[in-house]
Amino acid sequence: MAVKKYVFFFGGGKAEGRADMKQLLGGKGANLAEMTNLGIPVPPGFTISTEVCDQYYKNNEKYPDDLEDQVSQNLEKLEKLLGKKLGDPKNPLLVSVRSGAAISMPGMMDTVLNLGTNDESIKGLEAMTGNARFAWDAYRRFIQMFGDVVMEVPHEEYEKILDAQKKKKGVKLDTELGTEDLKEVVKNYKALYKKHTGEDFPQDPKEQLWKSINAVFGSWNNDRAIKYRAINDIKGLLGTAVNVQTMVFGNAGEDSGTGVCFTRDPSTGENVFYGEYLINAQGEDVVAGIRTPETLDDMKKELPKKYEQLVGIRNKLEDHYRDMQDMEFTIEKDTLYMLQTRTGKRTAHAALKIAVDMEREGRISKDEAIMRIEPNQLDQMLHPMIDPKAKVEAIAKGLPASPGAAVGQIVFTADQAEEEAAKGKAVILVRIETSPEDIGGMNVAKGILTARGGMTSHAAVVARGMGKCCVAGCSAVHIRNESECEIGGVGFAAGDWITLNGTSGEVIKGQTDLIEPEPTGDFAELMEWADEARKINVRTNADTPQDAANARKLGAEGIGLCRTEHMFFEGNRIDAVREMILSEDEKGRRKALSKLLPMQQGDFEGIFEAMDGLPVTVRLLDPPLHEFLPHKEEEIAELAESMGVPFDKLSKKVESLKEFNPMLGHRGCRLGITYPEIYEMQVEAIFLAACAVQKRGIKVLPEVMIPLTGTVKEMSILREMTVATAERIIKEKKEKLEYMVGTMIEIPRAALVADKIAEYAEFFSYGTNDLTQMTFGYSRDDAGVFLPDYVKKGVLEKDPFQVLDQEGVGQLVELGIKRGRSARPKLKVGICGEHGGEPTSVEFCHRVGMNYVSCSPFRVPIARLAAAQAAIREK
Amino acid sequence: MAVKKYVFFFGGGKAEGRADMKQLLGGKGANLAEMTNLGIPVPPGFTISTEVCDQYYKNNEKYPDDLEDQVSQNLEKLEKLLGKKLGDPKNPLLVSVRSGAAISMPGMMDTVLNLGTNDESIKGLEAMTGNARFAWDAYRRFIQMFGDVVMEVPHEEYEKILDAQKKKKGVKLDTELGTEDLKEVVKNYKALYKKHTGEDFPQDPKEQLWKSINAVFGSWNNDRAIKYRAINDIKGLLGTAVNVQTMVFGNAGEDSGTGVCFTRDPSTGENVFYGEYLINAQGEDVVAGIRTPETLDDMKKELPKKYEQLVGIRNKLEDHYRDMQDMEFTIEKDTLYMLQTRTGKRTAHAALKIAVDMEREGRISKDEAIMRIEPNQLDQMLHPMIDPKAKVEAIAKGLPASPGAAVGQIVFTADQAEEEAAKGKAVILVRIETSPEDIGGMNVAKGILTARGGMTSHAAVVARGMGKCCVAGCSAVHIRNESECEIGGVGFAAGDWITLNGTSGEVIKGQTDLIEPEPTGDFAELMEWADEARKINVRTNADTPQDAANARKLGAEGIGLCRTEHMFFEGNRIDAVREMILSEDEKGRRKALSKLLPMQQGDFEGIFEAMDGLPVTVRLLDPPLHEFLPHKEEEIAELAESMGVPFDKLSKKVESLKEFNPMLGHRGCRLGITYPEIYEMQVEAIFLAACAVQKRGIKVLPEVMIPLTGTVKEMSILREMTVATAERIIKEKKEKLEYMVGTMIEIPRAALVADKIAEYAEFFSYGTNDLTQMTFGYSRDDAGVFLPDYVKKGVLEKDPFQVLDQEGVGQLVELGIKRGRSARPKLKVGICGEHGGEPTSVEFCHRVGMNYVSCSPFRVPIARLAAAQAAIREK
Repeated sequence: MAVKKYVFFFGGGKAEGRADMKQLLGGKGANLAEMTNLGIPVPPGFTISTEVCDQYYKNNEKYPDDLEDQVSQNLEKLEKLLGKKLGDPKNPLLVSVRSGAAISMPGMMDTVLNLGTNDESIKGLEAMTGNARFAWDAYRRFIQMFGDVVMEVPHEEYEKILDAQKKKKGVKLDTELGTEDLKEVVKNYKALYKKHTGEDFPQDPKEQLWKSINAVFGSWNNDRAIKYRAINDIKGLLGTAVNVQTMVFGNAGEDSGTGVCFTRDPSTGENVFYGEYLINAQGEDVVAGIRTPETLDDMKKELPKKYEQLVGIRNKLEDHYRDMQDMEFTIEKDTLYMLQTRTGKRTAHAALKIAVDMEREGRISKDEAIMRIEPNQLDQMLHPMIDPKAKVEAIAKGLPASPGAAVGQIVFTADQAEEEAAKGKAVILVRIETSPEDIGGMNVAKGILTARGGMTSHAAVVARGMGKCCVAGCSAVHIRNESECEIGGVGFAAGDWITLNGTSGEVIKGQTDLIEPEPTGDFAELMEWADEARKINVRTNADTPQDAANARKLGAEGIGLCRTEHMFFEGNRIDAVREMILSEDEKGRRKALSKLLPMQQGDFEGIFEAMDGLPVTVRLLDPPLHEFLPHKEEEIAELAESMGVPFDKLSKKVESLKEFNPMLGHRGCRLGITYPEIYEMQVEAIFLAACAVQKRGIKVLPEVMIPLTGTVKEMSILREMTVATAERIIKEKKEKLEYMVGTMIEIPRAALVADKIAEYAEFFSYGTNDLTQMTFGYSRDDAGVFLPDYVKKGVLEKDPFQVLDQEGVGQLVELGIKRGRSARPKLKVGICGEHGGEPTSVEFCHRVGMNYVSCSPFRVPIARLAAAQAAIREK
Repeated sequence: MAVKKYVFFFGGGKAEGRADMKQLLGGKGANLAEMTNLGIPVPPGFTISTEVCDQYYKNNEKYPDDLEDQVSQNLEKLEKLLGKKLGDPKNPLLVSVRSGAAISMPGMMDTVLNLGTNDESIKGLEAMTGNARFAWDAYRRFIQMFGDVVMEVPHEEYEKILDAQKKKKGVKLDTELGTEDLKEVVKNYKALYKKHTGEDFPQDPKEQLWKSINAVFGSWNNDRAIKYRAINDIKGLLGTAVNVQTMVFGNAGEDSGTGVCFTRDPSTGENVFYGEYLINAQGEDVVAGIRTPETLDDMKKELPKKYEQLVGIRNKLEDHYRDMQDMEFTIEKDTLYMLQTRTGKRTAHAALKIAVDMEREGRISKDEAIMRIEPNQLDQMLHPMIDPKAKVEAIAKGLPASPGAAVGQIVFTADQAEEEAAKGKAVILVRIETSPEDIGGMNVAKGILTARGGMTSHAAVVARGMGKCCVAGCSAVHIRNESECEIGGVGFAAGDWITLNGTSGEVIKGQTDLIEPEPTGDFAELMEWADEARKINVRTNADTPQDAANARKLGAEGIGLCRTEHMFFEGNRIDAVREMILSEDEKGRRKALSKLLPMQQGDFEGIFEAMDGLPVTVRLLDPPLHEFLPHKEEEIAELAESMGVPFDKLSKKVESLKEFNPMLGHRGCRLGITYPEIYEMQVEAIFLAACAVQKRGIKVLPEVMIPLTGTVKEMSILREMTVATAERIIKEKKEKLEYMVGTMIEIPRAALVADKIAEYAEFFSYGTNDLTQMTFGYSRDDAGVFLPDYVKKGVLEKDPFQVLDQEGVGQLVELGIKRGRSARPKLKVGICGEHGGEPTSVEFCHRVGMNYVSCSPFRVPIARLAAAQAAIREK
């Protein structure tokens, strides 16, 4: 039987690995191999594969039989190549032992440097470098690192010894210690090691090597690494690889140095060589921040030849990888070595610019450019942000409910917001929670902060719709009254300044500098490419002509959800709505509804005009009626007086409409069944509006949507009512009009009987907010109490109100589509829950065959990009 | 092609139909044919099949081509058999035309009697009977009926003519009108007919016949018939048959009469011949109630020969049909005719006695006896009932939430209930709604009346568990304060008497006589047979040793649901519970929980003892924590003082725990995840109790049940905690103990991922209350507002909280079982929602392969019987 290859050599201009072997060699190992093969100078070494890590854990921390031999052979090969030997007193080889998984987990696993130093080889090192201090410093660093990482000798004990030595010498910096001092430190370090381990510090380099390898493999499953993988959703890896590589020293003199560079500017994306370096320093020195690094321009002056060589490598790597690279290099005595290359992290702006530039440069295709952008990053391009240069300290953190940032003066009621905003003030509305009555105040506020409610609470949904910054469910907010509150223990009064970061959920005291978004031409171009690539449509959720027009500018191809209830609050309409609710009988309700009819018609005309030529899905009234009535005694009294009804009567009505679980109560089409006249008025308004705008030459495609359908009978009854009303109006107005009647699928039962419902519905629109609520049995307004804990404890991977739960809710979505299309093959299917703008959920929608997704206006570009990526990935 | 047979003759001792041809001939036609074949005297005639009705509607109200010929042939055959002719002036044949579907729809469809009378045949009738008045009365009745039923001449116009005639003659009764009067009435009737129809009254008997047949078929789809079928859930019928049958006259003299009789007493079930009759009368006269009918004993004296003949027929029919029959007979001039026989309706007691008696008599098998009882009828045998002889008038109606009846004095709080009951008073607790805090008061009350909440509201569920009468969600109840209320507009004060009928939902003012249940030996015997027949187990939902013992007496084979939260309210435990909730940290919570531990242990010991040898499923804490705290300001203040905590702090805590939708909130295993110490204490109590009672020689089979599981991770985490705790206790106590860990399936998502959950759950118990809530998106506490309307409008066939929705919720149940067993083939599956005691739902549970159903103690016998019927039906 052929022995399995576990160890992969790189060096001498060729390597056994390749860049595409990341799974097996880890990112670092694969790229070291790739660079070696490209003829780029890389300190030689070898990589022990991730399969060994996998075997190690599967076999009770034992290595495969053949591993020791393979490591020995590779070590010999390395020694031969360099003419050096590990532990050799004359010509010692020093190596580093580093982790490296297929996905980068910076700082989570262990590293050992300067391996191979011992009491003998230190002499060779001294001789070779002609620098005793350098040699002894290397030795003491090794003992410290080995003890700490491999043997768990407490880190701070080493520090104590070093500090004692400095004190003794009356110096402050490590660099001020001389050779003799370091020798003493080494002695004390060894004593410490023995005290803690009961053994002498190992002098055998092989023992050093194997213990270090064990430690690195062992660090794959240390607590922080496990947690990191959980948090970052890293799965399906075999383990870490271990890279054993020849040490090179940037601190070997004035002809040495070390640096980090990017092939392009990672913050702007500009095609300029960008980076920093330090002369006579090691990587750690850059990190420690003791010396300020210089720019590459300085390097160009100081080490022009090395700089030229580095530029060459930069060009070669970018040509080769066809993406912006983040590289580490070290110059040892005028010889340049590359220690790492990897795809560089970048800002949203940079990502966009680099992708579009690289397509223009002919390096990548349009599809590749599209795949280079993380859709959620686009959010940064569309909202104001806190200036990254501003120093801010958050006093509290809530849910990042609607992205962007806002600075303003605190107000506590919607009325205050409107008053202050009318005076030209920037205001932040701070509430326990918002309700539809607050809509006016929310509209004029710069941002919204709530103490309660989740990512799909009223505040969050409305704010996202408006593209307005919102931090929701911030439990550190305690509102004392309508002029004072406490946030994270800090007292605030109305008028005090505050800053919200809706992208992170942070609340910041006082005013902070913001930067405004500047979607560039690159943005528009990439979006065009995305539109060509994607297969499903992107619509928007919009309730006003203004939102509709805005969404259209952002690329919306129709309205997927126009909520009619928001219109019920505007201006003095609420009076007519309340009159309707308080009516004793159908006749009274019809009278009140007839007052609303022309107003609703006006609303629809505005929206139809804004969406000329594009479909508009109008959802009939959804919320329970008690949402339109006041609940506090004094408010009821006020309303009773203004309406001229007895307080008792109004109070009784409010009481009788109260619900224990309004989310599961008398709302949606249940209202349409019990009070058909409400839906009739709405349908009438829709078709009167449609006929009116059509006469003005506007192309209108109304789609009437029944909410909260759970039984086929609800759909058949309401479809009949809708069609009868629509046909009546169309006939009266002597128009010809195409229209559709469909339903939300947001009740689990609706998905289960979708085949029957589809007989009466021309389209389905998945309301995944409610569907998630009911499939999980989570109230989106209350789950904020336990959901964060659930995600933290790993009960849930993601908040299912943010990312569609494909495992559970997704089953119902898929089932419903399948069954629906079994009864009506041409059934149009979309989604209008908050998930319609979340990239992984959009990909799911693409995969299960939806025709469109619909999301809040400011997420339209994200959905367009995510849909394009889904289509490309499918290829 | 052979012509299809549409018309079936009966007469002359043989018939073309049979009793088992009900679908084709309707119940009446099939039984007339059967009786004819049995040699029982039946006025001859023929039946037009239900297929004709079906064709008629399918073909735009046209009959099959051949029908007219077939009717003519059968009419000729009838005329030949009797030697009479339709419309013959000398020897006229008179017939009735009646509807008759496979399922009886009494009074819903049309009937025409005396058909064949006209200006000519009336002479023959006069001559034949020698009774001119009789003949003219028959003619006038025919004109009236034909005009009314066939031609829609307003009914009241006929009455006006008749009344005018009586007035003119100065008489009061129809029977006081003489021949000449009736001739004048006939004249006026004909004029009325012409005025309304524009035609003369038809003299052609064939025209009379076909118009009547049309009318009867037409009446299949009149509004009331459609409504009746909807209400009574009658489906799958082809239509009605039409019976054309020779008229016989019970009003032909003192040797004539008519009657109704039952082969056994329909109210007691005793095997005695039971019935009533009237001499010289027609069926209508019995109904009209003008004369008081005589008993069969009178008939025995007055018409001994006819009585003997009738007894012979009774015996023959019961022998033949092997069930109690409800028969109609007419004696025309000393000749006995049977006009109808059908299975007789009976009381629950009678049904039971008849079924058991008939098995003993060897008439039917045990299986058949079991099938003879409607399981829901058993309720009557187990609860007190309002004396059927008592005259009661309901002042309001609510939901029949828990069956039986109760009489008592009104109290408005649980405290009042306990105080008054302690004085020996019978009390009825009247509340807006009940909460777990009311449990003590509910326990001592005779009955419970609530203004809000549905069939599965707290009041309803708890009352059913206690076997206590409850009327819930009675919106006519308005509670003014703690000493006054208004019910259906009537004012009541504390201490006023009231009667509740929990079987009908009626509320009655004052005291009413009740009769106590007396489950007889027959009951026990039938139950034994049922237990032999059924395949699934029946357990009970019980929270106290008393309930458990009671349920065991009623046949429960274990506890399927022991709710631990009810125990949290007893005595002063609530103090410890509140201390736990108000604790700042885990340590504080553990301290409070340690006080609860011995009390919970004691509860479990009592229950385990009561269920010695039978399994007990204990559900860990389910309700949200705010249910254990007061919500009104004064109550909070009181509690704050008694606990020695600041009002503000307590008030803040209550506020922070408030939920918008508590049903979808922080409850069930979500509490177990965030506060593991609560569940740990409960598991500890269960196993401490189990070990303790086992030491006393009791056999204990604990099953720990996790509520509200929605994700596999919840189950795996809580299973691990449960097993670890259990093993620790078992080891400490040095016992050996079998136990199981399982979960409720009540969240739709749990059913969808049941395969994954089953890896960690040894049993599933379907909580179909919550599953129904979430699958439909209906809050059981709020749906009372629209559900009745939904059922009335046919949106739903049944209230899904009463009868399991097999179409929707049932899909999730079946799917969950299938997936669960795919991962764990021996998975034990049961149901512990309210549906576990509802017969059609029990049948569903049997069909989908559950191992058991669990229901409230008083429904255990119903479930046993329903399970037996399901098993028998499957054979």
